[in-house]
Amino acid sequence: MGAVVKIEGDRREVASIEAIISLTAQDMGRVNELILARAGSDVEMIPEVANHLISSGGKRLRPMLTLAAAQMFGYNGDAHVKLATSVEFMHTATLLHDDVVDESDLRRGKRTARMIWGNQASVLVGDFLLGQAFRMMVDVGSLDALDILSAAASVIAEGEVMQLGAAKNLETTEENYLSVIGAKTAALFSAAAEVGPIVAGGSSDDRTALRSYGMNLGLAFQLIDDALDYGSDSESLGKNVGDDFREGKVTLPVILSYGRGSDEERAFWKRSIEHGSSDDVSLEKARGLMAKHGSIDDTIARARHFGELARDALKPLAETPQKQALLDVIDFCISRVN
Amino acid sequence: MGAVVKIEGDRREVASIEAIISLTAQDMGRVNELILARAGSDVEMIPEVANHLISSGGKRLRPMLTLAAAQMFGYNGDAHVKLATSVEFMHTATLLHDDVVDESDLRRGKRTARMIWGNQASVLVGDFLLGQAFRMMVDVGSLDALDILSAAASVIAEGEVMQLGAAKNLETTEENYLSVIGAKTAALFSAAAEVGPIVAGGSSDDRTALRSYGMNLGLAFQLIDDALDYGSDSESLGKNVGDDFREGKVTLPVILSYGRGSDEERAFWKRSIEHGSSDDVSLEKARGLMAKHGSIDDTIARARHFGELARDALKPLAETPQKQALLDVIDFCISRVN
Repeated sequence: MGAVVKIEGDRREVASIEAIISLTAQDMGRVNELILARAGSDVEMIPEVANHLISSGGKRLRPMLTLAAAQMFGYNGDAHVKLATSVEFMHTATLLHDDVVDESDLRRGKRTARMIWGNQASVLVGDFLLGQAFRMMVDVGSLDALDILSAAASVIAEGEVMQLGAAKNLETTEENYLSVIGAKTAALFSAAAEVGPIVAGGSSDDRTALRSYGMNLGLAFQLIDDALDYGSDSESLGKNVGDDFREGKVTLPVILSYGRGSDEERAFWKRSIEHGSSDDVSLEKARGLMAKHGSIDDTIARARHFGELARDALKPLAETPQKQALLDVIDFCISRVN
Repeated sequence: MGAVVKIEGDRREVASIEAIISLTAQDMGRVNELILARAGSDVEMIPEVANHLISSGGKRLRPMLTLAAAQMFGYNGDAHVKLATSVEFMHTATLLHDDVVDESDLRRGKRTARMIWGNQASVLVGDFLLGQAFRMMVDVGSLDALDILSAAASVIAEGEVMQLGAAKNLETTEENYLSVIGAKTAALFSAAAEVGPIVAGGSSDDRTALRSYGMNLGLAFQLIDDALDYGSDSESLGKNVGDDFREGKVTLPVILSYGRGSDEERAFWKRSIEHGSSDDVSLEKARGLMAKHGSIDDTIARARHFGELARDALKPLAETPQKQALLDVIDFCISRVN
């Protein structure tokens, strides 16, 4: 659990998040308590919906980043616990709204909240969790942290709208696509990491290092997710393989295959992505074309590239167990595809 | 425009919001500029959706409350302009999400954003505006104002979920219903008013006065809205009469009619509200029962009661043009039904 054997031999044999899990275990206990307390409400449906998602087995990578990034600079108060909880609530709110936007039926192998309680509850409980996230940030009282996290909230929504605009549009360039995932996914990783040095009183250089680490890690993470959507099976991924394909999402494996394809292949992609002809036979054909053009391998290569940038971002920082744990997270995220 | 002849003779002949409009005109010009600037984005769909709603002719009562409440205590910086804009964005975000939750086709006589751009855009642009609202608050840098407004964001969402739980449930008591509208409507009026003395450096008593004024004004405002939904025509209200009825919303006029009704009448309400048999014939019957039991008149009487509380809340404050303008707003809100 949490460990995947890596094929590359140049670093650790096993890419694992055990180190960050163990370093943040005690603080994560406090995060989990705070999650339960702040997702609580006399309005019954709120904890029901929130707990459905919160208990559904995500790795809670984002709050761990905040905790480790604060510990790294010697912090030992409780502001990082509150901010880590805020980050997880922002993430959960995004998932609830995403499921409505994408009309998803499954997430992490479980029925989505909107399938059980309806779109309405997903929208409103998401709003509630976002409100609670802001209250916790305000409680911490750091205007710098508020600045970073509120900017992330806007940018995430902006990225989601951008993705909506690009939906089913095969003219989307790799560059456009990186802007989308930079906003919708990586901005929260980046903010989660940067608020660590902020509460710990780190320097401007420290903030820059963690911000850049988080941003590049987030890009790598999302690209691997995109690859997994075409390359894994439903059980291990916790979502249906081909979800992105069936929803007509133009992710990097599609962009690369379309760009490298023959006229006939492009016609296939247009039928599948733009006109929704995306049954299982088409999915198999799509996977075949991706194999032919190396689109999955190259998506993973791009992810590795951002992983290297994340690694370099931490170079200037002192060697600490937290730094090593954050480096391991990069390898772990990328090695999910092996 | 903005003036309604009142039937009661005990106060001004004409209940008008001209005074608050005129006192805040210059500041509202700055609010409107800021709205355009902060609803802007390189992602085209965002200003399109936002401007559709922002330009659709709401009175912008909430930001005017913030501006007048700050002026009242001699404030003349620009923090109140930013907070007023934040308040309007929070309101706009709520409307966008409400339309999705209620599956509404019309708002203020225009097609809703979700009808034009889809539910997805309504959810996500709402999220974006909420993020932008927080960024502006953070920009102001008052933790007290952030505290009040972030708490309001949670409470509003909580109220909406509460309403969802109470939807189509005729066992909802008047007390429960007041909790719902206290959260979903009045909390934002209250926060909008309270942040005025906060940025102006008012005393704790000043804050209490404005908070209580806003809360009670909000309750009165919502109850009048509920009455109008059964008592006006589509053109003047800008939404369809009977919207609440058709959506099975249990508002105060329904609660009173149900409680006062015969067994046969209760069976009618159950068919209409709980089982969705709410055609035009049923709507006419509902209006007839409300007339019979005085449910609309008594809803208005309840609104007047909260109007009196709002009036009393401002009593301790010095007589200023702003105070008089805020008192006029109470009369205006209530006189909308005459």
